[in-house]
Amino acid sequence: MPGLIECVPNFSEGRRGEVVEEIVRAIGQIEGVTVLDHTRDETHNRSVVTFAGSAAQVVRAATAAVGRALELIDMEQHRGAHPRIGAVDVIPFVPLGDTRIEECVDLARRFGEQIASRFELPVYLYGEAALRPERKRLADVRRGQYEAIRDEIGTNPKRAPDFGPLRVHTRGGAVAVGARKPLIAFNMNLRTDELATAIKIATAIRESSGGMPAVQAMGVLLENPGMPPMAQVSTNLVDWERTGIAAVVNEVRRLAREAGTEIDHCELIGLAPTGALLDVTADALGLTDFSADQALELRLARDR
Amino acid sequence: MPGLIECVPNFSEGRRGEVVEEIVRAIGQIEGVTVLDHTRDETHNRSVVTFAGSAAQVVRAATAAVGRALELIDMEQHRGAHPRIGAVDVIPFVPLGDTRIEECVDLARRFGEQIASRFELPVYLYGEAALRPERKRLADVRRGQYEAIRDEIGTNPKRAPDFGPLRVHTRGGAVAVGARKPLIAFNMNLRTDELATAIKIATAIRESSGGMPAVQAMGVLLENPGMPPMAQVSTNLVDWERTGIAAVVNEVRRLAREAGTEIDHCELIGLAPTGALLDVTADALGLTDFSADQALELRLARDR
Repeated sequence: MPGLIECVPNFSEGRRGEVVEEIVRAIGQIEGVTVLDHTRDETHNRSVVTFAGSAAQVVRAATAAVGRALELIDMEQHRGAHPRIGAVDVIPFVPLGDTRIEECVDLARRFGEQIASRFELPVYLYGEAALRPERKRLADVRRGQYEAIRDEIGTNPKRAPDFGPLRVHTRGGAVAVGARKPLIAFNMNLRTDELATAIKIATAIRESSGGMPAVQAMGVLLENPGMPPMAQVSTNLVDWERTGIAAVVNEVRRLAREAGTEIDHCELIGLAPTGALLDVTADALGLTDFSADQALELRLARDR
Repeated sequence: MPGLIECVPNFSEGRRGEVVEEIVRAIGQIEGVTVLDHTRDETHNRSVVTFAGSAAQVVRAATAAVGRALELIDMEQHRGAHPRIGAVDVIPFVPLGDTRIEECVDLARRFGEQIASRFELPVYLYGEAALRPERKRLADVRRGQYEAIRDEIGTNPKRAPDFGPLRVHTRGGAVAVGARKPLIAFNMNLRTDELATAIKIATAIRESSGGMPAVQAMGVLLENPGMPPMAQVSTNLVDWERTGIAAVVNEVRRLAREAGTEIDHCELIGLAPTGALLDVTADALGLTDFSADQALELRLARDR
């Protein structure tokens, strides 16, 4: 699987199922592209599709998806709980396997330029692909949402897109295109019903309050019918090569013990890079000289 | 990677490097086949090639390898420390990924019949592919080696091959063809130089002395120049779905503690099925509802 790339576009449509199905179909019919997942949220009025392929394949599929979304979604009609700037709201490219983030940065910029000219669509580059530092954070690009961009794009230089016209697309608004590393959603359930303990541990480990690099964390209380309530430390690991699963679990295990409790079990939500999971294997066994190339099917997938 | 199969033929040539290279080349030039490894041993006068592909691809490559070996190796001239019955001594087929062992059993039998007729080569089916229970163990098939089979094959019904003529091949002798599960070579190094401790633990865990199913183990003393000597429990896990790495490590850890020592670190030798490694991840984290399908690249390799 040389040069494998994941793409996770978000669309401003979560209520009309047939529209989402049409977009997913446009992506899935591109030769070589695998659709890994798609979810639809009615409250947010928003959908997320996850697919993967080579650089050329994901570009073809993402272009097809943008084309369909601009035909099917009208931003002047769109209402939803989630912030958004366009029919295709955000398109991140994510490196898989041996692919480097730099390849995704290049790809995002080339793709952004292409769709801007093809669809007359304003494109803002964000994340690792941002050309302006103030556009690194997606929340900053989205400030004021579609309506603010529509009203300011022609007059406020700060809102000028990186590519495309100084006016929003007739129906589709604008789009944020970027590159980011794969994200791991990973939860640790504690043997306590004290939310305060989970919050205290989450605060200690998250980067934003001085904890571990590239870790986002919050404490929540799980209340499932028929089950005793359980405090959970819920994390996103946004760069597992900086802080991996094993490091987070070992630290939370230590903090839980200090708080007089322990980890009951863990949950991995959705997909994670195989390398991040094999790192846990190597850590648990104290393996010396281990390489992910020793995983048979992974090695074969790379070589074939 | 649907229907992926590994093949690990052993050849009775470990001294003439150019002969081994020719055989490896014959395998590697088959479309779709990946050569994962090859090793050559002068003392054993024997070589092992590891390759993988679809059923049709590995059959094509194994047939090419048999053809080359029968041209290049003469059993009447062969001497070496390792028991052997032919120029191609043994050809096991191993299921990878989602492939089932039953597919490899079928494949070994069909392949055995084909090469027997094509090359006039006596074929003994062994392992899971054996048609006679007394041929399950390779050591039993090999008893007396090439010379005994050459002398007895025409007259002793117990030595009659499963396929092929009642005489050895002019140059190549005979071959054992079989099916087995993937094997994991895994070592645990103890924080002690007492060989007796490693032997005691190995004896406690190995199946042959009443230990864990599908585990082979021995105690050895590692003596590397410039390093303190270290006792090692060296294992082969011959069916990791029955007894996996985590179960073995947890048991050895417990026994080591009982003996007043502990595991210093572990070593994985060569390749292992990714599923066996991810099982360690799930065990170490106490993951609930974990599936190897959550490993991104693995999931993609399966779907593509």
